[in-house]
Amino acid sequence: MKPTEHGLLIAALGGVNEIGKNMYFIQYKDDIVVIDCGSKFPTENLPGIDLIVPDIAYLLENQEKVRALIVTHGHEDHIGGIPYLLKQLNLPVYASKLTLGLIKIKLKEHGLLREAQLHTISADSAMQAGEINATFFSINHSIPDCLGICFQTPEGTVVHTGDFKFDMSPVSGPYPDLHRMAEIGKQGVKVLLSESTNAERPGFTPSERQVGEHLLDAFIRAKQQVFVSTFASNVNRVQQVIDAAVETGRKLVLLGRSMVNVVNVSMELGYLQIPDGLLIEPEESERYPADQIAVLCTGSQGEPMAALSRLASSKHPKIEILPGDTVIIAAGPIPGNERNLAHVIDNLYVLGAKVIYGSGSATGMHVSGHGSQEELKLMLTLMKPEYLIPVHGEFRMLYQHRLLAESVGVPSDHVFIVNNGDAVRIEDGKASLGPKVPAGNSFVDGIGIGEVGNIVLRDRRHLSSDGMIIIVTTLSKSEKTMLADPEVISRGFVFVRESEELMNQIRELVLSTMNGLNEAERSQWSDIKQTLKDNIGRFIYSQTKKRPMILPIVIEV
Amino acid sequence: MKPTEHGLLIAALGGVNEIGKNMYFIQYKDDIVVIDCGSKFPTENLPGIDLIVPDIAYLLENQEKVRALIVTHGHEDHIGGIPYLLKQLNLPVYASKLTLGLIKIKLKEHGLLREAQLHTISADSAMQAGEINATFFSINHSIPDCLGICFQTPEGTVVHTGDFKFDMSPVSGPYPDLHRMAEIGKQGVKVLLSESTNAERPGFTPSERQVGEHLLDAFIRAKQQVFVSTFASNVNRVQQVIDAAVETGRKLVLLGRSMVNVVNVSMELGYLQIPDGLLIEPEESERYPADQIAVLCTGSQGEPMAALSRLASSKHPKIEILPGDTVIIAAGPIPGNERNLAHVIDNLYVLGAKVIYGSGSATGMHVSGHGSQEELKLMLTLMKPEYLIPVHGEFRMLYQHRLLAESVGVPSDHVFIVNNGDAVRIEDGKASLGPKVPAGNSFVDGIGIGEVGNIVLRDRRHLSSDGMIIIVTTLSKSEKTMLADPEVISRGFVFVRESEELMNQIRELVLSTMNGLNEAERSQWSDIKQTLKDNIGRFIYSQTKKRPMILPIVIEV
Repeated sequence: MKPTEHGLLIAALGGVNEIGKNMYFIQYKDDIVVIDCGSKFPTENLPGIDLIVPDIAYLLENQEKVRALIVTHGHEDHIGGIPYLLKQLNLPVYASKLTLGLIKIKLKEHGLLREAQLHTISADSAMQAGEINATFFSINHSIPDCLGICFQTPEGTVVHTGDFKFDMSPVSGPYPDLHRMAEIGKQGVKVLLSESTNAERPGFTPSERQVGEHLLDAFIRAKQQVFVSTFASNVNRVQQVIDAAVETGRKLVLLGRSMVNVVNVSMELGYLQIPDGLLIEPEESERYPADQIAVLCTGSQGEPMAALSRLASSKHPKIEILPGDTVIIAAGPIPGNERNLAHVIDNLYVLGAKVIYGSGSATGMHVSGHGSQEELKLMLTLMKPEYLIPVHGEFRMLYQHRLLAESVGVPSDHVFIVNNGDAVRIEDGKASLGPKVPAGNSFVDGIGIGEVGNIVLRDRRHLSSDGMIIIVTTLSKSEKTMLADPEVISRGFVFVRESEELMNQIRELVLSTMNGLNEAERSQWSDIKQTLKDNIGRFIYSQTKKRPMILPIVIEV
Repeated sequence: MKPTEHGLLIAALGGVNEIGKNMYFIQYKDDIVVIDCGSKFPTENLPGIDLIVPDIAYLLENQEKVRALIVTHGHEDHIGGIPYLLKQLNLPVYASKLTLGLIKIKLKEHGLLREAQLHTISADSAMQAGEINATFFSINHSIPDCLGICFQTPEGTVVHTGDFKFDMSPVSGPYPDLHRMAEIGKQGVKVLLSESTNAERPGFTPSERQVGEHLLDAFIRAKQQVFVSTFASNVNRVQQVIDAAVETGRKLVLLGRSMVNVVNVSMELGYLQIPDGLLIEPEESERYPADQIAVLCTGSQGEPMAALSRLASSKHPKIEILPGDTVIIAAGPIPGNERNLAHVIDNLYVLGAKVIYGSGSATGMHVSGHGSQEELKLMLTLMKPEYLIPVHGEFRMLYQHRLLAESVGVPSDHVFIVNNGDAVRIEDGKASLGPKVPAGNSFVDGIGIGEVGNIVLRDRRHLSSDGMIIIVTTLSKSEKTMLADPEVISRGFVFVRESEELMNQIRELVLSTMNGLNEAERSQWSDIKQTLKDNIGRFIYSQTKKRPMILPIVIEV
C-alpha cells in the first residue's frame, strides 16, 4: 500500500463515529506520527470482551515509517490502548509529565516499562519527524497537563485540539493559552482536527470551579461521613474534594484501585496539593468521629465491582455507610450506565444515606470536561482553519460540529466527516478524501488480543440467548451401527428437572432419526449432523419457540 | 397461609422497587380483588428472556377467594401479564372500554378471548366483592380512559390512583375529576396507594397539548416527508400527530405492528378522531408528493427490530427516508435504551434526515405522562390519606414520595415503603406491616413461562462471557480402556483457526489426564469428569485468563 506518494495524509484509526479509543495519524512521505492510542469498553452485544483497542494493521505494515506516538492527555480513551500498541510496535512515546505518569502505571502492569522509550514534553517543546514539525499548546480539560498539537508540514499546518474546554478559571494547571492559539490561527491553519463530544450542547460549559463551591456547601452541611464518587482520572475534581475536606477539617480515605493509583502519581508529580496527614487508611477511619471523615471513591457509573457499588450493598470490608451519611455522585452517567447507577442509588437510600445525585449539572456536582457549542465555535474562530475534520464523537456529534463550523464561516464542503480508516489527503493546498487504511476494533479478552473473531461472538450471543443442546452418538467403525444410546445434554436451554418430558421427546427423536438413516447415510458424518440438527431444531422450535444451538457429535469406535 | 384472619390486607405483587409489572391486591376476609397485571422487559443480565411477569403463587393458592381483576389503564406495565395470569386463573376482568380493547388484542393473540370474562366499567360504575365495594374516578395520563379506584371496606377507604398527571387541558378524554377526588378525600381515606414515577422531578408536568404545538410547527416547516416516532400506547400523542397531519394536508402512514393495532382499536372505540381518507398504506405513499406524507411509527426507544430502526438503516421494505426528510423522536428514552436510540439517530443523520430529538422536554416533542412533585402533593392534599403506600417506582422514587408526603403533613411513620410481597395490614383503624406473601419475577421465554430457572440463567451468562469446551471420551464397558481419541470441541471460546496450538495442548492434556487414571478411577464417571474439569480448567486459565464452561461427557460402549 502506498497511500502517500504525494501530499499529506491525515487519518483516523479510532475515535470517529464513537466515543472512545481515539487514535489518529498524520503521514508525510516516509514519516508517520501517531496521535493518542485509547481504549473503550465493550457494549453488551460483545459478551465476554474486556476491552476494545484500535486495529493497528496499517502501522504494523508501515512500521519502518512510524516515528512517534504523541499523547494529548492521560484519559483512558487516549492512553488505554498504549500497552497493546507497544507490545507490537515499540515506538517512542511523547507526552506531558502527568500523562506520562499515568501511562507508566499501565506499562508497569504489562511489564513494558523497562523497554519503553518515554519522552516528556510541554507547551514549550518541539519535536521533528522528517519534514513534520510538532509544537504544542496548553488546553483545559478535566485533567491537568493537556496539550493540543500544531504540526507544521510542507503542505501546511495541521492542528489537533485534544480534548478541551475553555475554563477561564481553572482549578489547577495553566489557563487555556488563547494567545498561542490566536497566533497559530493568524499564521494559517490548513486542517483543524477538533473534538466534538459536546457539539450537541448549546452554550458554554461552566467552570470546574463551580463544582468546588457545591462540594464545599455539602461538606459543611453534612453532620456525619461524606462519600464522594467521581472518576479517578478527573484530577481537577479530585483536587476540589481534597480542598473541601481540608476546609471542613475532615480526614480523607481513598477507595478503589484506580483512585489510589491516580492520586499517588498526581501527587508525586506535583499535580495534586495534599497536606501531610490528610490521607488516612480505610481501617484508620474508625478512630475519628463521623464528622471528621470524608471518603473519595470510584464507582460513579455504578460499575458493579467498584468501591461505591460495594459500599452501597454493604460489601466493603473496611468502611460502612451509616444512616445519615452523605453520598455525592460527582459525575454524569455515561449513556448505557444509567441503570447500574440507579441501582446503586437505590441501595444507598436503603442504607439511610442522604444521596446527592442527578443528571448532568442539576445538582451542581458535575460539569463536563468538554467544551459546548460556543467553545467549539471559539476554537474555530481562533484557528480559522481552511478545513475541519471533526473528531472524538458519534456521528450526530460530528454532524452538529459541521453545522457549527458552517455558522462561523467554514464552507460545508471543507468539513470532512470521516469514518475510522478514512484518510484525508492534502495535496497542492487542496484537501480531498484519500485512500482507505485498515481500521477497526481489536478485542482484548482475558490476556489475549485479537483472537476473538466474529464467529466466536456470534456463538456467544447465540448461547446466551437460547442455550445449547449437545447430542452424542456412538457408531461402530465397521458397520456404522449405534453402540450406545445417544446422549442428550443441555446447558442454558431449559431447566431440566421441569422439562423432563421435553428432554425425553428429544432423546426419542434422536434415536428415531438415527434409526431412519441407512448405512450409507451413516458413513457421512456431515449428513448425520445436518439431519440431526434439522430434525431436532424443528422439533424444539415447534415446542418452545426457541432456537438453542444444536451440536451433534459423532464418535466412531 | 392465613394472612387475613383479621383486618384488611393490601399487598404488592409487582411494581414497587421497579418500574414495570404492576400488580397489587386487597383482601378482606375471604375476598381478594386484584389491581393490574403488568409485564416488564428484562435487563441484559437475563439473556434470552423475552418478558417478565409477576409471580402469582399467592393468588393460585387462594384462588377460591380471588373475585376480580380491575385494570386501571391500557399500558403494558399494567396489562402485559394478563394473558399469563388468565391462563392459570380465569378470573373476571374489569376495565374501561379502551383498556379492555387493548387487553382483547393480547387475549386474542394467546387464544384466550373466547373464555375470558370481560366487564366494561367507567367512572360511574360500582362493583362489589364480599364486603369490598369499588367505585372509580377519572384521571389523566398519556392514554385515554384511565381510572383511579376507591375501595370502601369495613376497615376504611383505600384509594389506588393508577398512573396520573393533572393535565387541566387534556388532549382527549375527560378532565381530571378534581371534584370527585375532593369528595373522596373529604369522606376520609385510610390508605392511599399513589404512583411515584416522577417523585424525583420538581414542579408540574406540562400539558400534553404543548407537544401538539411543537409537532404542528415542525410539520409546517418540513418541506418533505415527516416521520414521527412515539409509543403506540401514547394514544393522546398519536391523536396530536393525526391532527398535525390533517392541519398540514398530509396523508398518514402507520408503521409497526403495535402502532397499527393500537390505532385500530382506539379508532373503533371512538378514542381517536381520524378523518376518512387520512390513513394510507405504506405502498400508496409513492403516489403523493413528499410534502403530503407523514409517517407515524414505533421504535422511539431505538428497539433494533422496530420500524424506526429499520427505516434508519434503510431496511424497511416499503418506505425510505430521503435526504431532507424530517424525523421527530416524540418520546423520552427509558433508562437503558439511550445507546440504541443514539445509534438510530446516527443512522438517520447518515441518511441526510433532519432529526429532532433530545432528552426530556428539551425539544418540546415530549412531556411525561406522570405527575411531578407538585402533582403528587396535589393528590395527597386532595385525598388527605391517613396512610400512604407509594407505588409504581424504584426505591429512590418511593423514598422521595415519602419526603413529599411529609411536606404536606403525612407523618413519616404513616408512609409504608414496601417490597413486592410485603403486605400492609389495617386492623382496628391502625396500619402495620403484615405478613409476607410470595412474590417475584416469572420469566417468559419462548412460549413457556416459568421453566427458566436461575441455573439456566447462570449457565447462559457463563456461556456468553467465556464460551464452552466439550470433551467427549469413549470407554469400553468391560475394561474401561479408551476406545477412541478424546474429542475436544469449543464454542464461543476462541477462534479455533487462530488457536490451533492451544486446542492441541488441551487435547494432549485430556489424553494424559485419562491415561493417568487407573481402572478404578475410570469406573467412577463423576471422578473422571471432575478430574478433567479441574485439570483442563486450570490449564486454560493459566494460558488465557478465561474460564470457559467445561463439559466432560463420558460414553461407555
